[in-house]
Amino acid sequence: MKNPPAISLPQGVRDILPEDALGIGVVETKILAIFSRYGFKRVITPLLEYVDVLSLGMGDNLKDRVLKFIDPSTGRVVAIRPDITPQIARIAATRMRDYPLPLKLCYNASVLRYHDNRDGRRSEVLQVGAEYIAKESSPEADAEMIIIAAEALRELGLKDFKIDIGDVGFLRAVFDGLNLSEPEKKLIKEAIGIKDSSGLDQIINSLGGKIAKADRELLLNLTTFYGEDEVIKKASAFVGKSGASAASRSLENLKCVFSIVADKGFKDFVTIDLGEVRGFDYYTGIIFEGFARGVGKSILSGGRYDNLLGKYGFDMAATGFAFDVENIITALGEKPRRV
Amino acid sequence: MKNPPAISLPQGVRDILPEDALGIGVVETKILAIFSRYGFKRVITPLLEYVDVLSLGMGDNLKDRVLKFIDPSTGRVVAIRPDITPQIARIAATRMRDYPLPLKLCYNASVLRYHDNRDGRRSEVLQVGAEYIAKESSPEADAEMIIIAAEALRELGLKDFKIDIGDVGFLRAVFDGLNLSEPEKKLIKEAIGIKDSSGLDQIINSLGGKIAKADRELLLNLTTFYGEDEVIKKASAFVGKSGASAASRSLENLKCVFSIVADKGFKDFVTIDLGEVRGFDYYTGIIFEGFARGVGKSILSGGRYDNLLGKYGFDMAATGFAFDVENIITALGEKPRRV
Repeated sequence: MKNPPAISLPQGVRDILPEDALGIGVVETKILAIFSRYGFKRVITPLLEYVDVLSLGMGDNLKDRVLKFIDPSTGRVVAIRPDITPQIARIAATRMRDYPLPLKLCYNASVLRYHDNRDGRRSEVLQVGAEYIAKESSPEADAEMIIIAAEALRELGLKDFKIDIGDVGFLRAVFDGLNLSEPEKKLIKEAIGIKDSSGLDQIINSLGGKIAKADRELLLNLTTFYGEDEVIKKASAFVGKSGASAASRSLENLKCVFSIVADKGFKDFVTIDLGEVRGFDYYTGIIFEGFARGVGKSILSGGRYDNLLGKYGFDMAATGFAFDVENIITALGEKPRRV
Repeated sequence: MKNPPAISLPQGVRDILPEDALGIGVVETKILAIFSRYGFKRVITPLLEYVDVLSLGMGDNLKDRVLKFIDPSTGRVVAIRPDITPQIARIAATRMRDYPLPLKLCYNASVLRYHDNRDGRRSEVLQVGAEYIAKESSPEADAEMIIIAAEALRELGLKDFKIDIGDVGFLRAVFDGLNLSEPEKKLIKEAIGIKDSSGLDQIINSLGGKIAKADRELLLNLTTFYGEDEVIKKASAFVGKSGASAASRSLENLKCVFSIVADKGFKDFVTIDLGEVRGFDYYTGIIFEGFARGVGKSILSGGRYDNLLGKYGFDMAATGFAFDVENIITALGEKPRRV
C-alpha cells in the first residue's frame, strides 16, 4: 500500500467522522423540530454574498473575520457567509415583504469566520438558529426565543446549563444620559466589557465631577447586577436615582421578559447579567447567551436587533439567536455533576 | 418605509424561501433515512480544501470550475468544495483506515461550482450522496447503489424516472484495443460523447484501415447499444468479433449489475446506454445518471471510481452517487403524464 501524500486541511475547518456526525444530525433535527413547533419556517441562504450587501447588516466584530475574494465576472468583492442573520434580514426585506407578519424564520447552516483561531475557536461553525421579525419590538417575542432555547436544550437532554440575559438597551440608555465624550464612554464600555471593576473605578474617578453621583453609582454597581429577578429591582433603584427614563423602560421590559420565561418553568435556567455588553453596537435590547457546565464556549447566543432590517430598507423589529451545534455536542458529552 | 438599497446576489447562488426549503428538508431527510437503512453513515466534510489536495481526486471537468483563493496565513491556494467525493476519499484514506470494510459513507451538503452558468445550471448545488468503499470492485456494490437510488426516488413519490446505466470500463477496454493515436481516440470519444453518429461515421471512415473491421462495427453501433438487457447481448456479439476480452468482462459485470437490479423489481426504471462516456477520465466502470420526466437536468449521477482512493494512498475500489436535491424538487413538482 502506498503512503498517503502529505494531506492537510486549511486552518479552521475539520472533518466530522460518523461518530460525531450522527450526534450532530440528531441535535439539528431535534432543534429544527422545536422551531417548527413554534411556527418557525426554514429558509436556506446562499453560501456567498456580496460584501457590500452583507456589510449593511454585520456587526463590527464580524467585518474583519469575513473570508473575501474578488468575483472575476463582476469585479465585486464576494464573501463566504460569516453569519446567517444579515442574510435573513436581506431575504425578509427583499423577498418576503408580502408575507404575513410576524415572520418566523429558522435555518440550519454552516458559517465561516476567518482567522478566528486566536482563542482556539473553529472557523467553520455549524449553526441552527431562528429569527423573529415583527412590526414592533415586544417582550413576548424575546421571551419566546429564550424559552425555545431553554426548551430545546432540555429536550436534548442537557441538564446543567444557564442562559445569561443582558440588555444592551439598558446600558445604551444609561450611556445616552451621560455628559461624556465618545472616547470617554468607550473607555467605560471596555472596562465593563471585560468586567474590570478596578479599572472601571479608576476611569470613573478620573472623570471626577463629569459624571453625576447617581450615574457613577449605577456604573460602579453594574457588575453586581447579576442574578435572579431581584437584580432588576436593584438596578431600578439606581436608575431611579439617576433618572434615565429610557433605562427604566428597558428594565420594565426585561422584567416582563423574565417573568414570562419564569412562568413557563424556566426560571432556574436563566440569570440576569446587566453588566454584559456583548454586541453593543449591533444589538438594541435584550441579549442572551447560553453556557453548559464543562464547556468554555457559549452553546447559543442571540438578542434583539431592531435596527438591522431597516438597513435593508424594511423597518422591522427583530430578535433571534443561534445554537452552536458542535458546542452542544461537547456539552452533551460532559458527565453530569456528582451531587 | 425606506426603499431597499440596491441588493443583489453573486451569480449562481440563490435564496431558498420557506415554500421550497420545506420540500428540500423533506427530500433530504427521506434520502438520508434510506441511506441509513442500507448501512451508510453520514460524514460532514469541510467547506474548504487545499486545491492541491482536492485536485488529486478531481476529474478534469471540475478543475476549471473551482472557486479558489489564496489563504493569507499559509500562501496556499484554498478552494470551496466543488464535489464531496474527493473529500470522502481523502477522509477515508487519512482518517478511516482502521474502520472495518466496506466503508459506507453518506453526506448532505452543498457544493460550489463556479461559472457553471453556460448551460443555465446553478453554481451552488445541494447534494445528498453516498459512497461505497471496499477492498475489491463488485457488481453487487454497483447494483446496491442503483437500487438505493431507484428506491429513494420511488419512496419520494416520483413515478416517471429512468436511470441510464453506462460503463466507461467497457468503452475504455475497447479503446485500449484500438491501434490509434491519442488524438485520434479523442476525436472518436468526442463524437460518441455528443452522440454524433454522422460525425463518428466520418471520423472512422477517414481513419480507413487503421481500425479493424470488427472494432469499426462496434464503434459505429455504440449509439444503438441503448435499451434493456438485450443490449448487453447485442454488444457482446460485436465484442466477440473484435476480441477485446476486457470489454467482454465489462459486459459480464454489467449484465450481473442489471440482473441484481431487475431482481429487486427495478427493471422498469433502468436503461442501459453503452454509448454514454460522461466522466470517462474519472470513472472506471459502471456509470449511471437519473432523469425525471419534464426535468432537463439529471436528478442524480454517479459511478464506479476505483482509481480515486489510490491517489490518496489508500488502494480501494469505490462506487457512489449523489442526488441533486433541487432537481428532484423540480421533478416532484411536475404533473404526472396523462394516460
